[in-house]
Amino acid sequence: MPSATAPIASTDDHAALALRLGRAARAASLVLANVPTERKNAALLRLAALIDESAAALAETNTRDLAAGAEAGLAPAMLDRLKLTPARIAQMAEGVRQVAALPDPVGDELERFTRPDGLEIRKVRVPIGVIAIIYESRPNVTIDCAALCLKSGNASILRGGKEAFHSNTALAALIARALAETGLPADAVQLMPTTDRAALTELLKRDDLIHCVIPRGGEGLIRFVAQNSRIPVIKHYKGVCSIYLHRDADAAMASAIAVNAKVQRPSVCNAAEKLLVHRDAAPSLLPVVGRALAEKKVELRCDPEAARILTAAGLATKAATETDWDEEYLDLIIAVKVVDDLPAAVDFINTHGSAHSDAIITGDAAAAEHFLNTVDSAAVFWNASTRFNDGFEFGLGAEIGISTDRLHARGPMGLRELCTYKFRVVGRGHVRG
Amino acid sequence: MPSATAPIASTDDHAALALRLGRAARAASLVLANVPTERKNAALLRLAALIDESAAALAETNTRDLAAGAEAGLAPAMLDRLKLTPARIAQMAEGVRQVAALPDPVGDELERFTRPDGLEIRKVRVPIGVIAIIYESRPNVTIDCAALCLKSGNASILRGGKEAFHSNTALAALIARALAETGLPADAVQLMPTTDRAALTELLKRDDLIHCVIPRGGEGLIRFVAQNSRIPVIKHYKGVCSIYLHRDADAAMASAIAVNAKVQRPSVCNAAEKLLVHRDAAPSLLPVVGRALAEKKVELRCDPEAARILTAAGLATKAATETDWDEEYLDLIIAVKVVDDLPAAVDFINTHGSAHSDAIITGDAAAAEHFLNTVDSAAVFWNASTRFNDGFEFGLGAEIGISTDRLHARGPMGLRELCTYKFRVVGRGHVRG
Repeated sequence: MPSATAPIASTDDHAALALRLGRAARAASLVLANVPTERKNAALLRLAALIDESAAALAETNTRDLAAGAEAGLAPAMLDRLKLTPARIAQMAEGVRQVAALPDPVGDELERFTRPDGLEIRKVRVPIGVIAIIYESRPNVTIDCAALCLKSGNASILRGGKEAFHSNTALAALIARALAETGLPADAVQLMPTTDRAALTELLKRDDLIHCVIPRGGEGLIRFVAQNSRIPVIKHYKGVCSIYLHRDADAAMASAIAVNAKVQRPSVCNAAEKLLVHRDAAPSLLPVVGRALAEKKVELRCDPEAARILTAAGLATKAATETDWDEEYLDLIIAVKVVDDLPAAVDFINTHGSAHSDAIITGDAAAAEHFLNTVDSAAVFWNASTRFNDGFEFGLGAEIGISTDRLHARGPMGLRELCTYKFRVVGRGHVRG
Repeated sequence: MPSATAPIASTDDHAALALRLGRAARAASLVLANVPTERKNAALLRLAALIDESAAALAETNTRDLAAGAEAGLAPAMLDRLKLTPARIAQMAEGVRQVAALPDPVGDELERFTRPDGLEIRKVRVPIGVIAIIYESRPNVTIDCAALCLKSGNASILRGGKEAFHSNTALAALIARALAETGLPADAVQLMPTTDRAALTELLKRDDLIHCVIPRGGEGLIRFVAQNSRIPVIKHYKGVCSIYLHRDADAAMASAIAVNAKVQRPSVCNAAEKLLVHRDAAPSLLPVVGRALAEKKVELRCDPEAARILTAAGLATKAATETDWDEEYLDLIIAVKVVDDLPAAVDFINTHGSAHSDAIITGDAAAAEHFLNTVDSAAVFWNASTRFNDGFEFGLGAEIGISTDRLHARGPMGLRELCTYKFRVVGRGHVRG
């Protein structure tokens, strides 16, 4: 087996590695699909204990990644993401315990019906099978994804970023120990022993053995996976989310929601990036909402009309350019636009948004209904912040991400969304006429 | 607009065509998503009437495809598939009426919950958006797919085979008339005006405008689409289906099911291709079941042990080669194998089958339960024929195909499987803490 420190050289080796990982995962998945909940939970709880026990050793290993990252000139923000502090290690263990406490989705009966000829059909939830997860620098993703896949009965192949390679390898060793000590297949969770992109490309060709690929990370990584994979991909792209203030919006509610959606955590996909205001209400609403945002140090990139109103109210603005309407800032910046009416707001969102999370603020039920029906996004909000589009907030428990795809899973992806179904059909000698 | 008879020449033109089709479909889809059921049904019923009224003209146009096909040396079976007889035209119209009569899946509430903070969340079924369907020679697919996509609120882009180009163009004209006469968007259903593969390749790049691709046809076409598409693909691959006769199987039931699964319609994906028999029961079961199959002119390709038993019973056999265990014959041929026990049968199916439809024949409930749990296929059958894996038989109504994928739709794909969902969230000024 190729070692971590001697990366694999030739394409042949990469292909062989992909085949070996895929075959081992497939074999493990057939066992895992029928492991009872208690045994999966036992493995998860053992993993949580091992993480806690190994906190010092994990932090020590993590310093190797941090040193290599500093030497490679990683930005401070990247180094921070990479870092395993005692609090983050404890959080990882706690996250695994939370997954153990969630209900097991496998075996749920989704439908049951008896056909006129007496044939009994049950549609039941089963694991997808083998899931590959491709991610970037944060090492806690290794544990999160392994735990969610294991609980949902899926074998996983994890391919983390090169910056976190030593940390990920140490975490994978704990996962392997937990699996071995609780009698689950060793190959139920496999970390790719190389971060070479050529090896990843080979893995993405194995649609005979791997059933689903989930890329988590920057847009470049996701595009690379989507364009090179023969395996179905569930993508987690960006969120270009809008807050639309309708003609009658309450200024206090509008301010509170706009500030929450923009400021509470600007770096995430369900943060607002655009503020749209009905023309009739702009003169009264914009000064209030703009001031609330400005007080939180949000830069306002405005169309000419919004700029005029905000400037007259004594607020600093910048002129929006054409690219501002489509951009995901992930920062304390918001683009502000005055729109003619509700249909114009909907049209703007369906044209410039990313179909992720969009909100209307209004007291008008008919206007809200129109917005909720016609905005073509995964989650549409009436008088609530876009920040609620999240697995925990929706009550799904831990999530593996927020899907921007429309097939299989849309929006928050929890344990149930890591499953597919099968039809179990029982006859008494039934043949088709 | 490029005409049918002057195919588009350069890559630039193909890219422009793909962009135009995609944009028009996307715009139509946003309207269609909120069209009430009655108006969709009115368009479908008008289409059915137009098909009936135009039977003579359709048959006349179809002769152009048949003549071109004969000249191009198409096999008689292909020419037969291409042919629009009066009965087939009436069947197309009837199929559209059946789709009109099915319940509309759009707007179904899938879940509703109120969070502890009072936030109200509804998960509702909505159309996927824009669906491209890529298919081969049979012109009725044009009508089937247009009707299913329209009823489920999706805009469709149809790309049929070149052999049926004139017939498809005539059918698309009827669809356009039905849409226009009932006030639905003209671009709700678009037929690609060229069958050039380069144009298809450009279409498959438009993941910004098209949300799902469904290829229907031979394995070569499906692989081409899967490998060239940046849009999520729902594949309908082959069915390598097995019937396993357990130790205690009743010979009469085993014969009836094996014959039904193999013979009733050998050319379809849920027909049986493999017959597995428990070693202990082989001497008594194989002569009976083998004779029943042989009487229906089924060729028996056997492993040495099955051959020995069947030959001793006076039946003709052929020796199976290694490739026989993985092959989809779609013909009156079945591969026959003696297995050591139930786990060996399950292992054979999970290794050589295509995870489509597999059956066990037994009176032993524990053995059946083991089989249903551990065979990793879309539909698993106990004492029933694999031929039941079908949208009509499962009561879904008309189907667009039988998905061999695990994501989004597995097994029969009806109207509901042509939908996704969105979250509608209603607050009273809720912000995230």
